[in-house]
Parts: sequence; C-alpha cells; structure tokens
Amino acid sequence: MQIIGEKINGTRKRVAQAIAERDAGFIKDLAVRQAEAGSAWLDVNAGTRPDLEPDDLVWLIETIQPEVDIPLCLDSANPLALRAAIGAVNKTPMINSISGEPGRLEKILPLAAEHGCQVIALALDEKKIPETSAKRLAIISQVMAATRAAGVPDERVYCDPLAMTLATNIHSAEVAFETMRGIKAAFPGVHLTIGLSNISFGLPARKYVNRTFLTLAIQAGLDSAILDPLDREMRAAILATELVLGRDKHCLNYVRASRAGVFDESK
Amino acid sequence: MQIIGEKINGTRKRVAQAIAERDAGFIKDLAVRQAEAGSAWLDVNAGTRPDLEPDDLVWLIETIQPEVDIPLCLDSANPLALRAAIGAVNKTPMINSISGEPGRLEKILPLAAEHGCQVIALALDEKKIPETSAKRLAIISQVMAATRAAGVPDERVYCDPLAMTLATNIHSAEVAFETMRGIKAAFPGVHLTIGLSNISFGLPARKYVNRTFLTLAIQAGLDSAILDPLDREMRAAILATELVLGRDKHCLNYVRASRAGVFDESK
Repeated sequence: MQIIGEKINGTRKRVAQAIAERDAGFIKDLAVRQAEAGSAWLDVNAGTRPDLEPDDLVWLIETIQPEVDIPLCLDSANPLALRAAIGAVNKTPMINSISGEPGRLEKILPLAAEHGCQVIALALDEKKIPETSAKRLAIISQVMAATRAAGVPDERVYCDPLAMTLATNIHSAEVAFETMRGIKAAFPGVHLTIGLSNISFGLPARKYVNRTFLTLAIQAGLDSAILDPLDREMRAAILATELVLGRDKHCLNYVRASRAGVFDESK
Repeated sequence: MQIIGEKINGTRKRVAQAIAERDAGFIKDLAVRQAEAGSAWLDVNAGTRPDLEPDDLVWLIETIQPEVDIPLCLDSANPLALRAAIGAVNKTPMINSISGEPGRLEKILPLAAEHGCQVIALALDEKKIPETSAKRLAIISQVMAATRAAGVPDERVYCDPLAMTLATNIHSAEVAFETMRGIKAAFPGVHLTIGLSNISFGLPARKYVNRTFLTLAIQAGLDSAILDPLDREMRAAILATELVLGRDKHCLNYVRASRAGVFDESK
C-alpha cells in the first residue's frame, strides 16, 4: 500500500490559515511527520483562493520540498496552478486529478503526459458521480482511452472508483469494490487509489468505518490511498490487512511495526 | 453475524479453577456478561478432566442456564459427556464439534441427529489439518455426506474451515477464505463459523490480526464465529464490517451501537 498523505490541504481551516500567513513552520512540520509515518507521496492542495492558487501552491512546494525526500501529489483542477507547480518541483509529481469531465481531461492530461507525471483518474464526469459501477467503469474507460492516446502509460494512472457515504446509500462501498474489480479486470496495469474519508461522511465513529472500508478495499485490489498517515490505528489496519492477505513475508513488517509501537496492545 | 461466546472454557486456567471449586458466581457472571454483549450461543467446555467431564459439564449447564435465555454450544468430543449434557439443557444446543475423524462422526453425529442439534463440522480428519483448501473441502464433503445420511439438515451444520496461525504459514488466512468460498459454493445451505484466535498464535498485537481476519472472513461468507464477545473492539469491527458490506439497513445498528458507547471515539 502506497499512502498519499492528505494533511496539507488548504480546504482545512488551520492549513488555509498557515498558507495565508505564510507559516512555513506549520507546513514543514506536517510534511515531515507525514513522511516519517511512511507516506509515499504528500498531497498538496493550496485551497480555495483561485487567484492566489498558483502562488500559494508554489510557496507550499518550496516550503515542503527541502524537508522531505518523497514526491508531491499536486491537488488542483487549475491548469495554471499545475503548470506553475510542475515548474517548482524537483521530483516528478503525481497530479490529483483528471476525470471524465472533458475540460479537465483536455487541459490537465497534456501536462501529465508532457512531464511524465502519475495521474489520479476519478470515475466521474461533468454530470455527477454515477450510482452504478457499470457507469463508473464506462467513465474510467473513456479516461483510459484519453490517457493512452496522450501517451501516458497505464502504470502511471491511479484510478479512484469514488467512495460516497454509506449514510445515504448503504451499498456505496460495494459499488466502489465492484468498480475496483471491474477496472482491474479491464486495465490490469493501472493502480487503484481512493479518497478514504467520504465513505463515512455523516456517520458516527467514522474512523472505524474508514479503517474497515480500507481493509475490504485492499482485498478488492486497492494499492494506494489518500489518507491521514498520522492516524496510528489506520496504519495498524493496513499492516494487519497486508499480513492477513499473505503479503507480509515472514510477518516481518508486522512484527517490526509492533516493536516500533504502532499497535495499541491495551485493546 | 452470530457470536458463539467462547469464555466458559475449562482449558483456561481461571475457568478450570472455577469448575473444580464449583464457583458458580464466577461462571454465572461470565455467562450473563457474554449474553448481554450479544452472544447467540454460549460455548461451554468443561476442560481437561476426562473422568469428571460429564459431571462438570452438567454442573456448568445447570449453573448457566437459569441466568441466560440463549442456547448453549456443547464443546466436547466425549459422547458420554455430550449425552449427559443434552439431558440437562432446556434449549436445543449446538454441538462443538464433529469432523472427518470416523470415530467422532459415528459417535457424535447420531446424537446431533436424534436431538435436532446444530453441529459444528471441522475441516480436519484423523491425520491432521490439510494445508490446501481443496483437501479441506474434500473432508467437509465427506462430513456433509454423513450429516445428510444421518438426517441432519444442511441449515443445522456450521462448517469451520479452520484458521491456522499466519506465523508459520503466511497464506493460512487465504486458505481459510478459499475453503469458505468452496464450502458455500458446494453447500449453499450451511453456515460458516470459525474459531478466531488461532490465526494470530505466536504473533504480537494479536487482536488486530484477529479483527482484520474477521472482517475479511465476513466478506468471504462467514456468518458466525467463536470469539470473545466482551472484546469491545471486536464488536466494533463486526458492526463496521456489516455496515460497509451493506448489511446494516439505514445504518441503524451502527448508529445505535455508537450511542451505546461501543466505539472508542478517541481513536
């Protein structure tokens, strides 16, 4: 499992404040802690000030980059901001995200192709998020036709089947799993990723739902996720899931994590 | 998920002591707390004193029975003890267990058939526990031929695919899942159950392994398990799994459990 650390996100109030105030210490700390907790990428979202987004994003990158050795995941739908950001990174970034929305595909995909970026592809189009896995798969198929036509290899595409909250549709996790299995069957070379926390929106005890959804999603083929790597119980769930699914040879990662204190043994 | 509460087990030192000393208070308390925590059955194992087993088992039953409204799961391989126990229960019990061992089948199955008991069928024979799911399925097929010949309806059979520890075979959970899927395909009417804790024998942070295994096993068709119903995190895992798998209509059980304090919201 590759973790895309989600915490540097300007739609979060405290992060927005740090961006507005150019509080580099706060951002650096979030970056370092997420990297130390095993993130493969750090998601970087400059927030909700469209005019300022290119500058804000470049400031974030220049603040984070000297502190960590991992690449960034540029979280923006704004081609101007993305172009500025790609000019500022020193490691090939991931782009978060493209989708079946034609405007987004046309404007962002060429950037990804030109710079060899990984790219997250969402199973939604300009209308909305389809309810059925068949329709989501149809959108991903369109997107994949476009990424292939643009010369982006399947291995660089991270498909997100989309997790809608169980609070309004009790079958939404199953739809996501089905979509994941369908994508892997049709495009074996792609990765599967997911923004985890939507699944529990509006429910109590959300972290339990998120962790359990993650365990079952890994079983369905998920190999990456956008989540909070500082959530110790989430890391514990990933380690236990990889162990149970036979992917932790000689149980080494699990035993090592236990020695490092990842698990709360009192529970 | 139907929970078979595992705690009244005479192979545990403290329970053995309570049995030897006829400490009814201790046993009653274990029974009541497991019933209140949502057990569908209480496993009752009189422990390791073969000569005394019939008397010990009957004492346990007579101690527990006035305290709870749920049936018992008689955990013994001794036909004498089972016969005495069946004479003492006031609700049709489950028998734990039969297997492909001919002696066990011949001696215990007629009791189950005669008294209309549910019965746990283990995927092992007189040799040992097979490593592959194909061989375990072959044993279950033999056992099912015997239960059907004896007139036990499939609906009363709880097949246990057996969970061996991941510490010595990293693929043992996968073998259990495969066995479960094979059993359900061949015998759609049966239930699937499992003794949960073996999966993590010899590993650190065992509870995390057990809970994650349970989540993935429910996905593979498990509808019952022998476990500690007083383990709050285990109950939380079951509730979250049923929610994510779309089996908790309107999220009612989950929300109710949250209000009842099942989830540790601090984590």
